[in-house]
Amino acid sequence: MTRGVETTGTAKIRETTRLTLIRTGLGIIREKGFNNSGLQEILQASGVPKGSFYHFFASKEDFGLAIIEYDAGEHQREMERFLGDTSCGAVERLRRYFEAKCRYFESRRHREGCLLGNLGQELADQNETFRVRIERFFADWCAALAGCLKEAQKAREIPAHLSPDSLAAFLVNSWEGAITQMKITKRTEPLQLFMDFVFGVLLKPSS
Amino acid sequence: MTRGVETTGTAKIRETTRLTLIRTGLGIIREKGFNNSGLQEILQASGVPKGSFYHFFASKEDFGLAIIEYDAGEHQREMERFLGDTSCGAVERLRRYFEAKCRYFESRRHREGCLLGNLGQELADQNETFRVRIERFFADWCAALAGCLKEAQKAREIPAHLSPDSLAAFLVNSWEGAITQMKITKRTEPLQLFMDFVFGVLLKPSS
Repeated sequence: MTRGVETTGTAKIRETTRLTLIRTGLGIIREKGFNNSGLQEILQASGVPKGSFYHFFASKEDFGLAIIEYDAGEHQREMERFLGDTSCGAVERLRRYFEAKCRYFESRRHREGCLLGNLGQELADQNETFRVRIERFFADWCAALAGCLKEAQKAREIPAHLSPDSLAAFLVNSWEGAITQMKITKRTEPLQLFMDFVFGVLLKPSS
Repeated sequence: MTRGVETTGTAKIRETTRLTLIRTGLGIIREKGFNNSGLQEILQASGVPKGSFYHFFASKEDFGLAIIEYDAGEHQREMERFLGDTSCGAVERLRRYFEAKCRYFESRRHREGCLLGNLGQELADQNETFRVRIERFFADWCAALAGCLKEAQKAREIPAHLSPDSLAAFLVNSWEGAITQMKITKRTEPLQLFMDFVFGVLLKPSS
């Protein structure tokens, strides 16, 4: 019994240490890039010794993939919260979803940007394992937005001639570009332009 | 006289060496990123000794800024060629301009992406000198596209209610996002979606 309790406790500590490493690494890598973030810096910021790191992750690449998995999970939960809120129409759900993202980036003073977009840009030509994982992340994102756009189309909220899949992909691509420009200009304007054109022109029932 | 001839010759060699460094550095940095590209690798690929490098550039940052200047000049000439071609309407000029870019990226097998977008994403939070220079590059680009869109509006090719400046910025942001997704997916589709939505929906006279 005592041993069982100890094991549970140890497992919890291990999980906490792993999570600390992932969250700290995520923050540093999102800001500085994958190649430019030293393991030493991440360990120091986490307060975790090097030996412990290699207990959880086989390599820096393995660590990077765990960070992507964590971030993708957070992203999935955020989408479910906004896009699953059936108290309003599908276009309104999409608007609230992107509005929340705009507020988030304002609160971060237009820094860092999107982890997956950053890593995709940095690593897509350098590492096929990362590229494939990041491609899947964006495909999942597009599929979730397309589902919402299909609902909007069924409810005649948006024009029937637009393909929800194409529209979802265009939205994701444009959003990612807007984030990069937000980061470069240190202004909300690129995100606001995205909101204006997407919700004021593209998704307008009359267009 | 002889000395004058020698000086001209030396100046030419110097300019050639400088250009070789810039072009080689541009290729490597566009593919691998600024921080991830070693000076040693660039020197080796250029066949230029280290001492010569510091004759032309005070630092790696100085070199990076010279590369941006060079790329911005090339970009400017490309724009003038396409957007200055008054043998067709303004929207058609824009379409040809972006179509040429699509063909370029296909010929590069969807690799590397946009140097300035890459550097912006990588360095905007890290180096204010780079951020400001990159911001100016995108502002100049937007202004050129906005000029063309104003012409299109005067000629009633596009709806009067759209702001050419906002539209130009949205186009640039969306294009940059499409390039990142092209790089991640290694497919033309994101660029094609940009063309479809921009020229088939946003810039359609009836929308």
